[in-house]
Amino acid sequence: MSVGQCDFPTMHPVAGIMLGTACAGIKQTVRDDILVIQMAEQSTCAAVFTQNAFCAAPVHVAKANLAHKPRWLLINSGNANAGTGEQGLQDALLSCAELAKVVNGANNQVLPFSTGVIGQPLPVEKITAALPEAIKKLSIDNWDKAAHAIMTTDTFPKGVSKIIIIAGQSITINGISKGAGMIQPNMATMLGFIATDAKISQAHLQDCLALAVEQSFNRITVDGDTSTNDACVLMASGCSSAPEITSDSEHYAVFADAILSVCKQLAEAIVRDGEGATKLIRIVVEEASQTEEAVRVGKTIAHSPLVKTAFFASDPNWGRILAAVGRSGIENMMLENVQIFLDDVCIVRNGGRADDYTEEAGQQVMDKDEITVTVKLGRGEAVEEVLTCDLSYDYVKINAEYRT
Amino acid sequence: MSVGQCDFPTMHPVAGIMLGTACAGIKQTVRDDILVIQMAEQSTCAAVFTQNAFCAAPVHVAKANLAHKPRWLLINSGNANAGTGEQGLQDALLSCAELAKVVNGANNQVLPFSTGVIGQPLPVEKITAALPEAIKKLSIDNWDKAAHAIMTTDTFPKGVSKIIIIAGQSITINGISKGAGMIQPNMATMLGFIATDAKISQAHLQDCLALAVEQSFNRITVDGDTSTNDACVLMASGCSSAPEITSDSEHYAVFADAILSVCKQLAEAIVRDGEGATKLIRIVVEEASQTEEAVRVGKTIAHSPLVKTAFFASDPNWGRILAAVGRSGIENMMLENVQIFLDDVCIVRNGGRADDYTEEAGQQVMDKDEITVTVKLGRGEAVEEVLTCDLSYDYVKINAEYRT
Repeated sequence: MSVGQCDFPTMHPVAGIMLGTACAGIKQTVRDDILVIQMAEQSTCAAVFTQNAFCAAPVHVAKANLAHKPRWLLINSGNANAGTGEQGLQDALLSCAELAKVVNGANNQVLPFSTGVIGQPLPVEKITAALPEAIKKLSIDNWDKAAHAIMTTDTFPKGVSKIIIIAGQSITINGISKGAGMIQPNMATMLGFIATDAKISQAHLQDCLALAVEQSFNRITVDGDTSTNDACVLMASGCSSAPEITSDSEHYAVFADAILSVCKQLAEAIVRDGEGATKLIRIVVEEASQTEEAVRVGKTIAHSPLVKTAFFASDPNWGRILAAVGRSGIENMMLENVQIFLDDVCIVRNGGRADDYTEEAGQQVMDKDEITVTVKLGRGEAVEEVLTCDLSYDYVKINAEYRT
Repeated sequence: MSVGQCDFPTMHPVAGIMLGTACAGIKQTVRDDILVIQMAEQSTCAAVFTQNAFCAAPVHVAKANLAHKPRWLLINSGNANAGTGEQGLQDALLSCAELAKVVNGANNQVLPFSTGVIGQPLPVEKITAALPEAIKKLSIDNWDKAAHAIMTTDTFPKGVSKIIIIAGQSITINGISKGAGMIQPNMATMLGFIATDAKISQAHLQDCLALAVEQSFNRITVDGDTSTNDACVLMASGCSSAPEITSDSEHYAVFADAILSVCKQLAEAIVRDGEGATKLIRIVVEEASQTEEAVRVGKTIAHSPLVKTAFFASDPNWGRILAAVGRSGIENMMLENVQIFLDDVCIVRNGGRADDYTEEAGQQVMDKDEITVTVKLGRGEAVEEVLTCDLSYDYVKINAEYRT
């Protein structure tokens, strides 16, 4: 189940970025579950990682190797290699070494990523055995297969492809991502891989990514759980004929906007495919005194199981939204100044139900599968948006049966 | 559905405290839905209220009237009189005035409490019409009926009755409470009413209550949503022959302990009856550097939908517990020092799965319907306990269908 039409787009190749997948059989399934991405030699690479204090073994290794001009990403689904202690760390390092051997590179030029069940040993031998196949298949045309290979409970692959023109030359930006549970990214998302053929320094690339992630992946939540494995990578091969993007060039803003746009689309796709999701809920908090306040109110609403079940039931139970705003921990909040809208229907005004509100009008909005909740706090001018989904029987089912 | 045996106990009468119920038909149901409690003239009364910024109309009135030596509580279920604006405030005041008229008391000696649907006008006329009946029935023997009258989605009435001996004289303490959703009390609980015949000043009574609530109702969570109507009241009629309890008397600690014990039992009953609950989860956080840290880790685990669905499925998916500890926002947490136990089975040690852990041992614990999760942080000596329940299909069902 997912919300809305989510066809995988045509992905334009990104010069200098090759992808290869293979089936390692990590979860005894017959589908490609490992992905190798190879970057051209002059590439730069930026990344952001989970803020979970117990980040997984591959996150430790990827963080360390980011400084060594990475050329390869090694991604597996089906096993998170998290909560696996010292052995997990050795397993992540060994996987990198095995890939480096096949491609004749340096161990520390490989960034490893894992997603799947926490707490089970990584089957390194299975992964090692499948590496030659993935390498053999390396091609600039494998974005579709790559998006499939990184899926866990996702019901559809997530991709975005975008071309921008800079100084008359085209720059391609592609991204893939995966959800679909344990989603409240914190400074990073579950897994997102974005590649471009732009020429840009590592430092600028990192700035672009950090800014984009903050406004996209860090504004979504499915269940409020921050994964131990969240990571988002932005690779730039420099193979485009467009001039180098520097921070003082007029092109920087165009490029940064394009990266943000790709991140936002990937983030939204994760929510549309949130575990058990039947509705996409866009929570816009306006008139907040500051950004942090707006995000806090938005996330409190987005995390409320009572709000989420009401959306699942298409019940315009706005009292639950009001209660969530009230418990979000904002000091000196004045109920009298708060207004709440479902799409363009005002439901709360002057501290109570809006005079002109009717259950019919509320019901009409709730029957849609994409709904915008707008909360005006009457405290300032900050505006932020948080995306979430509803809480359905299927969320419970998926997560109750996850390991069976 | 509830966890464990929850028979309503025999409630000893509390001298000086009379209770009367009646059917006002607030939700078109044929059951008693209003409760009046009358305190003897010399009584003292303490109360704590929700910290939700948008507290309901009756909470505003009750807070104000607490200073006027209250003699009566007027409680209704089926309608929360929250999110009802100025009209809601007038309705709460009018209800108090109507009761005062019948009992020939002062308006501001009545404390009103409401629980039920948010955002719908309080049917004051229905309540007024039923008041004479409730007053006529006032009796010291109506604790059972009172516990029933305050229920909403609760599946069983919750009561505790306790007798302590002070200076050779008995003091009775009775309490009733109701849940069962929007439960993460913050300085108060959903609704709890406790009465004793002890002689004790209002100031000491308030101290006792605040301390007890902090260690009981404020340590439970069903869904992390703090209600707009949470309130807990402690009444003392002074009718016992025991000497007055003063803060410098040796009896103070005995009395305070008894109040805490009653609060803990009532709080636990709320979790046992949490919406859709099939398991009671006791989360003990040990070796924290301070109380606040222990509570924070405990509540992060307790709020994780992934942890809660794993418990529902009896799946020893300890990785989800570990991930929740990791995202709880404690600075400089060292994974290597963390240990996690399911009952007495150690599942995590030295940052990874305990060497001696087996899935069979974990499964044996998970198959129980009352489970203790112990997390040792290895940072200090603070210990705190948080109670919660699992997240089941029925939670979604109950909350999706709440208003239908």
